[in-house]
Amino acid sequence: MKLSYVISTQPTQFQAVAFDLNFEANVARLAELGYDGVELAVREPAKLDVVTIKRTLDKYHLQVPAIGTGQAFVEEHLSFTDPDSSIREQAITRIQSHIDLAREFGALVIIGLIRGKVQPNVSREQAHAWLVDAMKIAARAASTQNVRLAIEPINRYETDLVNNVVDALALIDEIGANNVGVLFDTFHANIEEARIETGMMVCRSRLFHVHLADSNRWYPGAGHTDFGRVIATLKGMKYAGWVSAEILPMPNLARATEQAIRTMKDLVK
Amino acid sequence: MKLSYVISTQPTQFQAVAFDLNFEANVARLAELGYDGVELAVREPAKLDVVTIKRTLDKYHLQVPAIGTGQAFVEEHLSFTDPDSSIREQAITRIQSHIDLAREFGALVIIGLIRGKVQPNVSREQAHAWLVDAMKIAARAASTQNVRLAIEPINRYETDLVNNVVDALALIDEIGANNVGVLFDTFHANIEEARIETGMMVCRSRLFHVHLADSNRWYPGAGHTDFGRVIATLKGMKYAGWVSAEILPMPNLARATEQAIRTMKDLVK
Repeated sequence: MKLSYVISTQPTQFQAVAFDLNFEANVARLAELGYDGVELAVREPAKLDVVTIKRTLDKYHLQVPAIGTGQAFVEEHLSFTDPDSSIREQAITRIQSHIDLAREFGALVIIGLIRGKVQPNVSREQAHAWLVDAMKIAARAASTQNVRLAIEPINRYETDLVNNVVDALALIDEIGANNVGVLFDTFHANIEEARIETGMMVCRSRLFHVHLADSNRWYPGAGHTDFGRVIATLKGMKYAGWVSAEILPMPNLARATEQAIRTMKDLVK
Repeated sequence: MKLSYVISTQPTQFQAVAFDLNFEANVARLAELGYDGVELAVREPAKLDVVTIKRTLDKYHLQVPAIGTGQAFVEEHLSFTDPDSSIREQAITRIQSHIDLAREFGALVIIGLIRGKVQPNVSREQAHAWLVDAMKIAARAASTQNVRLAIEPINRYETDLVNNVVDALALIDEIGANNVGVLFDTFHANIEEARIETGMMVCRSRLFHVHLADSNRWYPGAGHTDFGRVIATLKGMKYAGWVSAEILPMPNLARATEQAIRTMKDLVK
C-alpha cells in the first residue's frame, strides 16, 4: 500500500482538505514526512498550471493517485443530477476535464459530491437515471484515456445518492463499465456501514481507492476507528492500491500531516 | 437503568422518531415489549391532549422520562439563537411550555436543536451569548417547577453549537444552574467523541439522560457501536437514569422497537 495526503490546488469551502498558497512548501513537507503521493482536490482543471505542478511533484518524487472533484459541486453547484440540463452538461464537461488531468498523472478520478443530491421536485428515480446517464458518458470518456473512476459512498448528511458500498455496487452494475469502482472512506463508513471491515470486504473486487479519516474526521488515531483492523482487512484482501488521508487539518495542518503518516506507516508495514 | 423509546406526539419531518396516528396502539406495544417508559417528542405542548396521554400511559404503567423539543426548530424554526429577537422569545416561551408539560410527567426537558445554529451574519460569540441568556431563563423557569434540563451534544452536520460533551460542560458552567445537565446520545458521540466511553465518563457528574442509537442510527445492535462497553461504562459510574432508544424506525417500526429492547435488556440486566 502507498500513502498519500489530500491537498487542494485552490482555496475551498470544503474543510476536510488542506490548502496553502505555497503549494511547493506543502509538497516538500509531505515528501519529507514520508508520503508517497499527493491526492489533488481540483475544482477547475483549466485553471491549473499543470506543468508547474508536475515539475514540483517530480522534484519531490511524489505521485498523484487520485483527483478529487467535489469542489465543482461545493463551490459552483455543478452536478450530474441538477434539474437544469445545462448544469448537468457542465458537470459532465467538467468531469471530462478532470479525466484529461488524471491521465497526465496516471491518477484515477473520484466521483464524490459531483454526483449531486435528489433536488426538490425531482423524483429519486429521475435523479438516479441522470446519474447513471452521466456516469456512462464519463466512464466511456475515461476508458479512451485509460483512466479509472471511483465512486465514493458519502454519508447521509452530505448526499442522499449512494451512501454505502451496497448502493455503490448497484450503481456500478448499472453503469456496466470495467473502469468504474469504489472509493472507500472510513469516516463516511463509520456512519453508514453496519461494520466498517465488512463494508470493505463487500466491495473488495471493485475497490479502487481508500480514504482514511478517523471517526471525527481528524487524522487516523485521533478518534475511535480501529485502523489496525482496517489495514489488516485491506492486507487480507491483498489490496495493493493507495490509502489517502482526507482529513480536517486539526489541530493544525502540521500535526495532522505528521500524525496521519505516523499511524498509517506503522500499520501498513 | 430503565428503558424507554422515543415517540412523537404529532407527525414530524425528523426521521429518528416513530409516529403513528394510533398513539395508544404504539404505547400498548411498547409496554408489551417490556419498555418502562416512553420519551415524548413534542412540537407544541398547547396542542396536546395531556389528560388522554396521561390516562393512556397510566393504563400501561409507562413513565415519561423526557420531553424532546427539537421539532419546534425543525418544523417551526424556533431557536434560542435566531437573529430575530421575537423568534428567540417565542423559542423561550415554547420551552417554558415544555417545562410545564414535563412537570406533569416528572420528566426532564431536552435542549437539542431548539438551541439553533450560528446563523449567517451572526458571530459565534453573539450566538453563544444568546444561548446562555436563553438557558439561564429556561433553567430558572424549570427550577421553580422542579424540572431538569438536559443539553444534548449533537453532531456537526446538524448544528455548530455544542457538538460534544466538553462543549456542553462549558456551557453548563456558564449557565451556573444545578438543574442543567447532559444528554449523551451514542449516535452523535460516534461522530464527535474521540472515545465514546471517555465522553460519558467526562460528563458523569452531570449525566442526566442517555439516548442509545447505533452508529447508523438504527436500533442498538444494527451497527458497530459496542453497546456492551457503553452499558458497562454506565454501570461503572452507577448511572441510575434512563436509556432511551432514539432511532430510525428501520427496517420498520415493529422490528426497531423489538430489536432495541432485546439488545438493551440483555445488557442492562
